[in-house]
Amino acid sequence: MRLAFAGHGASRGLALGRARVRLPHALEVAEQRVPAARTKDEAARLHEALEATRAEMRTLREKLQGALSSEAIEFIDLHALLLDDPELVQALEALIQQERYSAGYALRVQRDRLAAVFQSMDDPYLRARLDDLDHIIGRINAHLHRHDPLPRGTAGEVLVCENVAPSELAQLQAAGVVAIVSAAGSPLSHTAILARSLHMPLVVGAAEVLSRINDGDVVMVDGESGQLVLDPDAGDLRRYRELQQRDLRERRDLERLRSKPTRTRDGVDIALYANAESREDVARAHALGAAGVGLYRTEFLFLQDRETPDEEEQFIAYRDAVLAMGGRPVTFRTLDLGADKADRAGLALANEDNPALGVRGVRLSLLYDAVFDTQLRAIVRASAYGPVRVLVPMVSCREEVLIVRRRLRRAVAAVRGRGVSVQVPPLGAMIEVPAAAIGVHGLADAVDFLSIGTNDLVQYLLAVDRNNDALGDLYSPLHPGVLRLVAHVLRAGNEHGVPVAVCGEMAGDARLAPLLLALGLKEFSLHPAGLLELRRAIRDCDLSQLQARAPRLLQARDRRGIERWLATA
Amino acid sequence: MRLAFAGHGASRGLALGRARVRLPHALEVAEQRVPAARTKDEAARLHEALEATRAEMRTLREKLQGALSSEAIEFIDLHALLLDDPELVQALEALIQQERYSAGYALRVQRDRLAAVFQSMDDPYLRARLDDLDHIIGRINAHLHRHDPLPRGTAGEVLVCENVAPSELAQLQAAGVVAIVSAAGSPLSHTAILARSLHMPLVVGAAEVLSRINDGDVVMVDGESGQLVLDPDAGDLRRYRELQQRDLRERRDLERLRSKPTRTRDGVDIALYANAESREDVARAHALGAAGVGLYRTEFLFLQDRETPDEEEQFIAYRDAVLAMGGRPVTFRTLDLGADKADRAGLALANEDNPALGVRGVRLSLLYDAVFDTQLRAIVRASAYGPVRVLVPMVSCREEVLIVRRRLRRAVAAVRGRGVSVQVPPLGAMIEVPAAAIGVHGLADAVDFLSIGTNDLVQYLLAVDRNNDALGDLYSPLHPGVLRLVAHVLRAGNEHGVPVAVCGEMAGDARLAPLLLALGLKEFSLHPAGLLELRRAIRDCDLSQLQARAPRLLQARDRRGIERWLATA
Repeated sequence: MRLAFAGHGASRGLALGRARVRLPHALEVAEQRVPAARTKDEAARLHEALEATRAEMRTLREKLQGALSSEAIEFIDLHALLLDDPELVQALEALIQQERYSAGYALRVQRDRLAAVFQSMDDPYLRARLDDLDHIIGRINAHLHRHDPLPRGTAGEVLVCENVAPSELAQLQAAGVVAIVSAAGSPLSHTAILARSLHMPLVVGAAEVLSRINDGDVVMVDGESGQLVLDPDAGDLRRYRELQQRDLRERRDLERLRSKPTRTRDGVDIALYANAESREDVARAHALGAAGVGLYRTEFLFLQDRETPDEEEQFIAYRDAVLAMGGRPVTFRTLDLGADKADRAGLALANEDNPALGVRGVRLSLLYDAVFDTQLRAIVRASAYGPVRVLVPMVSCREEVLIVRRRLRRAVAAVRGRGVSVQVPPLGAMIEVPAAAIGVHGLADAVDFLSIGTNDLVQYLLAVDRNNDALGDLYSPLHPGVLRLVAHVLRAGNEHGVPVAVCGEMAGDARLAPLLLALGLKEFSLHPAGLLELRRAIRDCDLSQLQARAPRLLQARDRRGIERWLATA
Repeated sequence: MRLAFAGHGASRGLALGRARVRLPHALEVAEQRVPAARTKDEAARLHEALEATRAEMRTLREKLQGALSSEAIEFIDLHALLLDDPELVQALEALIQQERYSAGYALRVQRDRLAAVFQSMDDPYLRARLDDLDHIIGRINAHLHRHDPLPRGTAGEVLVCENVAPSELAQLQAAGVVAIVSAAGSPLSHTAILARSLHMPLVVGAAEVLSRINDGDVVMVDGESGQLVLDPDAGDLRRYRELQQRDLRERRDLERLRSKPTRTRDGVDIALYANAESREDVARAHALGAAGVGLYRTEFLFLQDRETPDEEEQFIAYRDAVLAMGGRPVTFRTLDLGADKADRAGLALANEDNPALGVRGVRLSLLYDAVFDTQLRAIVRASAYGPVRVLVPMVSCREEVLIVRRRLRRAVAAVRGRGVSVQVPPLGAMIEVPAAAIGVHGLADAVDFLSIGTNDLVQYLLAVDRNNDALGDLYSPLHPGVLRLVAHVLRAGNEHGVPVAVCGEMAGDARLAPLLLALGLKEFSLHPAGLLELRRAIRDCDLSQLQARAPRLLQARDRRGIERWLATA
């Protein structure tokens, strides 16, 4: 039966497809059954979760061995025992096969059964084992929902769920999901920002969807207006085609902006640079009229062969990028790897408890002299073919910049020694370590330009690993502390005459353009895919009006205050 | 033969003992031999390092299985093969047993031998395997030096080394090391700050020590002046006893400050609170005239039994602390655990890639409603016995504080419902998440007080895990960004009439007192052990002079600039 309802449009795009419903993660799920045809999949999911939990226990056990008392290890063994308990596993299987319960609901039912047994025991020791049971059930449940059951057969489907984590989006897109509808969420969440950059239609805050839509229902989704239609009729389908037409026209309109300047309504020119990590990105950036490449990621060269590429290989890649930009500058970011990935580039680092707070970016480069010098020479050589800039990631203090500048000068001398005429390229620092942002006055006279990497900056500022789904919406660039700091860096750049760009995801989100313009940003660097849309958004902005409203933005005390400001921008 | 030389005194205290020399970590160590009696220990160290590397490979392999291509796994297997290669292991053993080489130097010699073989090969594939060899040698070496060879027989010895990591200090103290002398290092490093808080004598920057001092030499160390004497004569020993006497007198002088006010030379009162995590700490704080407990860590109650303590158990502990302070306020910090430790309190969390950026502090409390509410009720009940404050860790935004305040009010209502007359205790937030510090204006009117936790704040600000030794001196509170942010929070507190304390290690370091006073700090919270020393340091300060020099401090562009300011304070 046709049913229309609405959420908030969070990422534009149209989709028409069968629904795939995913219920929330908490253990206390309402009774949920799966179609008979899917019980086998559910059982497989359960076994994967059991296996993942076992692996987790093994890793934990190994880590503890020698490091902790044998007591603690016994505790792990007890859990491992529970995990292999045939009672538990067989009962769960039966619940899935016979009752057609979802794996998650089966877990809950069996937990309650066992809990009743434990609680009825006279022996307080045994009664206390209920905690262990809950612990282990909790872990299985977490694994069950870690990366949800979407890999198989979801191509062309619309995911209907309580909420979706940023880290899931790419995987969902790869699995062929055509749109996402969530009961919770906000159009300004990190998930929404990412969905827009992936061009994945997303409707959020559609409270009723979980109770109204069932697996297999046909749903029509408009990610711009937030409109949803269940079981669309002939009229709806006609409207869908009209919307598709309109979308096409808009895309054509957007294409016309290729040759247009990026200029605000009140006539201020804004520079749009492109982020790139392949030749295709560079070519696209050039075709779209980007002012240059603002962030060329060099990691892809290092992650191919499990060894560091030699100077020649790097030189060729860098030179080709410079040539492809036809005289517009290319900003090469030096190697940005951490202990979690360095292995893949053939660089040996000890395991770290917190790789995000470890040896990475310039810290790694300063540990591997030969690797760093080779990269600098390759970049310097490429500078003979067009304007080049060097951008250093994870800078935390002035001392690091001074060392890199000495090394860069040495690389220039080495290349000159081979008879190639080159200049010292402009040197810039990524601003992604909070202390570097706050103490930017100590960096400003040591660099030629700055680039704010909002992805990592926000992560450190909020002490939130953006890939940790358990933290939900806590990761957000729309925090008063983030905006004040970005404004502070832009102001300092202005005072010292040092240009400042923003190159994180925040810059690529057209919805946030008024906010960044209000804070004083004049240079954006973003994935080429979003360049025209951002150009259009900027052309719709009146800079002097926005800047007049900036003080109110900086006074916002929480995220809601910032969202309200944006809503009226 | 008697030899006197000097480094920089970094942590006061006298020591006289046999030297234990530790050479630097890099693979390129100079030839180093060990006494015949220690070759067995060296061989054991080598085997431990081999075993640790094997375990690392196993963990890596397990992590990769299913997640990566079989190629990558073959790569690991190749390494595991090298690791079990009898050639390598036997040769290393022979070098240690027969040549009496240290394990590290043996590793280097054998590496060079094998490298020569590899490099002479005609087959380019085999020649390239040298990289694998270096990779694996690098890992063994890292494990060899992870936690250095001090556990056995170092009681009463003086460690002589290139440098010492902050994370090693407690272990060294537990092993009975009586003093540390390092060739590198600064008196204002994180290591030095920690050494002072542990009362471990430390001399840094004594460049010649590694070439002059040998294992077993007798050394006399004065951690205050930085004076070192090798093979002291009768005159030196007399002077040592005199210094000991002087030290004793000073300690007695310090004791006289117990009943003295903490007042600057120009008559401004400063409040010294104590950090506490046991009844002994609280009793000591009271005896030393602390203004109250500024940070009562409640974790110790949770980490005992692998289950969360019940309300009664917590209530008794909190009430006893309140009674012991005799009317001075006790600030209870609510549970501050992360995914890396929550297991030990019986709370199940998924493994996290970066637990420091994960579910911890208030984030954890807000996930476990029952645990949090129980703790709040226990604290509220304790407030019937004396003044109590509630301090919430890891706050990142205003919203969290508002939720906690609602929960606190509910706890008060619950306790009142039982007939106990209590008020809503003052509620404060830890400032340790950078965004909360920058956006402090959004928190200030939602809290009754603030407490800056510099340990975590510095960690996030610099994106440096302070327990990661590979990052060396990068962790430091003496960064311009750190000082500016602390000043910003103090200023905001002043504007909003909200008292602000500092409760991290920074507050406990008497040497940094002039700096914190200059920035405007009026409330310190520190371990009782350093309280009298800090009181003396503050009584030596002239606040108006320091504040007049504050602008110059805030203009420092790097650590050296800050150290220069401190040197003339």
